[in-house]
Amino acid sequence: MPYRAPLKDFRFLFDKVVDISQVSATERYAEATPELVEQILGEAGRLCEEVIAPLQRAGDLHPAKLENGVVRTSPGFADGFKAIAEGGWVGMSADPDYGGMGLPMTVTTAVNEMMSSACIALQLCPLLSQGQIEALEHHASDAIKDLYLPKLTSGEWTGTMNLTEPQAGSDVGALKTKAEPNGDGTYAISGQKIYITWGDGDFIENVVHLVLARLPGAPEGTKGISLFVVPKFIPNEDGSLGDRNDLRVVSLEHKMGIHGSPTAVMQYDRATGWLVGEENKGMAAMFTMMNNARLGVGVQGVGVAEAAYQHALAYAMDRVQGKADGTGTIVEHPDVRRMLTTMKADIYAARAIALYNAISIDMAEATGDAGWKARAGLLTPITKAFGSDVGVAVSQEGLQVHGGMGFIEETGAAQYARDARITTIYEGTNGIQSMDLVARKMMDGGEEAYRMIEEMEESAEAARARLPELAGDVWSAAEALREATEWLVAQQDLQDRFAGSVPYLRAFARVLGGFAHLKSALVGDDSHKALARFYIKRLLPEHVSLLAHMREGAEGLYDISLDDLSAA
Amino acid sequence: MPYRAPLKDFRFLFDKVVDISQVSATERYAEATPELVEQILGEAGRLCEEVIAPLQRAGDLHPAKLENGVVRTSPGFADGFKAIAEGGWVGMSADPDYGGMGLPMTVTTAVNEMMSSACIALQLCPLLSQGQIEALEHHASDAIKDLYLPKLTSGEWTGTMNLTEPQAGSDVGALKTKAEPNGDGTYAISGQKIYITWGDGDFIENVVHLVLARLPGAPEGTKGISLFVVPKFIPNEDGSLGDRNDLRVVSLEHKMGIHGSPTAVMQYDRATGWLVGEENKGMAAMFTMMNNARLGVGVQGVGVAEAAYQHALAYAMDRVQGKADGTGTIVEHPDVRRMLTTMKADIYAARAIALYNAISIDMAEATGDAGWKARAGLLTPITKAFGSDVGVAVSQEGLQVHGGMGFIEETGAAQYARDARITTIYEGTNGIQSMDLVARKMMDGGEEAYRMIEEMEESAEAARARLPELAGDVWSAAEALREATEWLVAQQDLQDRFAGSVPYLRAFARVLGGFAHLKSALVGDDSHKALARFYIKRLLPEHVSLLAHMREGAEGLYDISLDDLSAA
Repeated sequence: MPYRAPLKDFRFLFDKVVDISQVSATERYAEATPELVEQILGEAGRLCEEVIAPLQRAGDLHPAKLENGVVRTSPGFADGFKAIAEGGWVGMSADPDYGGMGLPMTVTTAVNEMMSSACIALQLCPLLSQGQIEALEHHASDAIKDLYLPKLTSGEWTGTMNLTEPQAGSDVGALKTKAEPNGDGTYAISGQKIYITWGDGDFIENVVHLVLARLPGAPEGTKGISLFVVPKFIPNEDGSLGDRNDLRVVSLEHKMGIHGSPTAVMQYDRATGWLVGEENKGMAAMFTMMNNARLGVGVQGVGVAEAAYQHALAYAMDRVQGKADGTGTIVEHPDVRRMLTTMKADIYAARAIALYNAISIDMAEATGDAGWKARAGLLTPITKAFGSDVGVAVSQEGLQVHGGMGFIEETGAAQYARDARITTIYEGTNGIQSMDLVARKMMDGGEEAYRMIEEMEESAEAARARLPELAGDVWSAAEALREATEWLVAQQDLQDRFAGSVPYLRAFARVLGGFAHLKSALVGDDSHKALARFYIKRLLPEHVSLLAHMREGAEGLYDISLDDLSAA
Repeated sequence: MPYRAPLKDFRFLFDKVVDISQVSATERYAEATPELVEQILGEAGRLCEEVIAPLQRAGDLHPAKLENGVVRTSPGFADGFKAIAEGGWVGMSADPDYGGMGLPMTVTTAVNEMMSSACIALQLCPLLSQGQIEALEHHASDAIKDLYLPKLTSGEWTGTMNLTEPQAGSDVGALKTKAEPNGDGTYAISGQKIYITWGDGDFIENVVHLVLARLPGAPEGTKGISLFVVPKFIPNEDGSLGDRNDLRVVSLEHKMGIHGSPTAVMQYDRATGWLVGEENKGMAAMFTMMNNARLGVGVQGVGVAEAAYQHALAYAMDRVQGKADGTGTIVEHPDVRRMLTTMKADIYAARAIALYNAISIDMAEATGDAGWKARAGLLTPITKAFGSDVGVAVSQEGLQVHGGMGFIEETGAAQYARDARITTIYEGTNGIQSMDLVARKMMDGGEEAYRMIEEMEESAEAARARLPELAGDVWSAAEALREATEWLVAQQDLQDRFAGSVPYLRAFARVLGGFAHLKSALVGDDSHKALARFYIKRLLPEHVSLLAHMREGAEGLYDISLDDLSAA
């Protein structure tokens, strides 16, 4: 049951729903013509179907291993990464001055989704490089850019993010890694970092670590964190490799999924690093990378969901059961059909939200418009949390479609569920995303949220003549979201916002999904209409319960004492 | 973070919520005095905490293995099972005439939950024996009962269920295993069965298989299925072991979870079997076993959920993060608190439903009353599906509470999520449970469902004076459920019932949970009230969306063609 790239869906979404033409109408992205985009997606689709997807099971069955200090990667991953690098896919959206293709993030988002479907464990490697490239483009000195960007963009070298330490996870500000000036403009970096995705690999010429650390006397918390580039091999000025730096992979984690992706504990012992951006302003630079990565992780969720959906659908269309004459397959059973249609409808919603997000990033980049920037900021946590939730839910439902076979590892359904599971956790747990949405992204008094809701209501109004029932449901849902947002913004005590932030984010995503499906019903064929109806009538109503939950705020949340919570 | 048996919760539920005194007031269960029940739960709790729980990780890390035809079990499982058998826990509810304790199913249900929390992979072994004992008690000849029941009850021998074949899963009627009369009252059984839990084990003296097979010339489908007892070793009349039967374990499955439970492919080559019950009436006997097992599997979900909850809570109370002075733990964060309280509230609801179910079984057994029997029939699919859904959801949330640590296998959080995953699938997928609820369990025109709803409404009415807001919410939810049930029963086309059967079952469970929590708020302390409020205000509203989903029926469900579903 091989993966097939959903090119038709992307074409439809690009042209008819999220409107990529507004991006190619800008000077910045003028080269991204419909023909070029079509050709690029086709090429990426072929690569994912033919070269990357066959590596997925091998990555699960033969995890990356640490042997005598060398990270031995899964069978075929070296060739797979080579194909990705040589195709220019690492640097799709990177600056052409350094070898990138300079394409819109919207196009990169579609390619990243397909690559996650094909093999999320391998796709993490270029994804991390993409984030690092963006961080360096925005914050590094010209010297660093000249030295590192061409190598990262070409895929000769790869990038990592080093934030987490054993005592500093969601609370990055608690990190202790030290950076001491060497007196020659470089710094000596010492400390231990954990959860370093693709911390090393036997096919990688040089690994470039972006490391958060504290300078001597730096303020406590996030205001005393600086960012450093710390390469495994210290490059000479011509880009050739010099001395081995004082850093090493201590161990690799034994994980529930993404076995092919080496997750390293990294040790730095006065490793040589170079400052990126200003002293004590490391978080700002890291946020550039994290925002990119958050969109990327949401899209990973959608990608794994798509692959799990295709896998389950193929099984359901093949599995004969329940008809005396032995002809019927389970795809005809109403409950199996419900599961598969739910999966498809949710994938569509999450994919559309991710593409709206990417469009906003592209428009902000191309126009410098603050509105687009605020839109991207609003949508990023929603894309990340909803996309990854859909990844988990759809892969779990795909397993369920398989019945007993789903629990048998050889079937492959369980791998999607295990792989997807990390996406709701890394790059900020979905709880952190929700807090970001209701606090930082509402520091404008809810202005951007209201603007988004207004847009959804206007769109529903415009659709009312042709699709009165569906348009009415979407309008009402948007209105309920507006009222909930007004309640939220009125809460002075952040605890009241945080207590219901996860249900609120999910409700926001549900309504955005209704908005995207309604648009699809207006401009698409009968099948789009039927899918939109399924979503709007059966899945969108979830917003009602979610918003009821949210409105409770923190009231009574602490009335059950810790003693009572732990009473047995 | 060791497991602690939730004895206080059971005591509260027994005495104040599900009212076990009505069971001990019957002649049949007169011996089950409060003192005896208390003592039994205490002993079972100690066994689970001290002997069984320490085996859980070992089972995951060292799966059962097939070596030269012998099923080598996980380290410590032999001793663990010995302790279970010697404590009399296999035969808790079995007939005292054959060595059982004859205790109410309500008590067994609590013990089974604790044992599932401690080690679900091992607990499956006595659980299957319990189902087999009940099936033989009801359907086997005296000769078979005399020979097998004492050995099964004592745990010297263990039992299995053999339904599934590669082409016959949810559709049991498609099975092909043959039973040919040997002319001496025995039958020659030939065929392959899959997914045979605890198909064999190196500490088991004799494995007794209950096998569904077809006699020559039997009608097609489920009406041509007979049930046979097929022992690994053919017992002599005195219970000593005779010849090795012609059956064998072909292979063990490589599964996502419950690694310690050997899941076998069994091959029967003219193995000697004895008919249980009448020819072609095997499904009736098997249903006795399956109904027992369905309650048991729902309770497994609750058990794994409880263990995962305790594990996550202990982590959250220990994990310092987010406060500058390094004193605060994440359990103080509103979103973490929301997750943990949701887990606790849902466990309470699912546990109460399972206990109501068990009470109904006991009252039906003790009184022969058709109303109690219908109640048990109604609640069984709800207990199974909701209990297992809670098992999956709570163990997934427990993993989420751990953040990045949750994805690392050594933490143990992932094991709960992997183990729980089977419970929504085996003993009839949750889709099958929902179809059972809306079709077979509504063949009475909804009478028993209405009776249950009526009871919930009356209970809410009675609570209105003291807890107006919570009682009002539960009453309204029950009323919405009644209207939905009326709609459901009115659908002549079963497709319309089936299409929304999963959301309907879940809504029913949600409302039952509200009923149980409301009762708890009335009679419990402030902590019970706070938990009830959390559930009723934040989780119960889910029924609104679920019932909206259900009401769509099969309309439009097939409007998206298979071509469009598979379009990429």
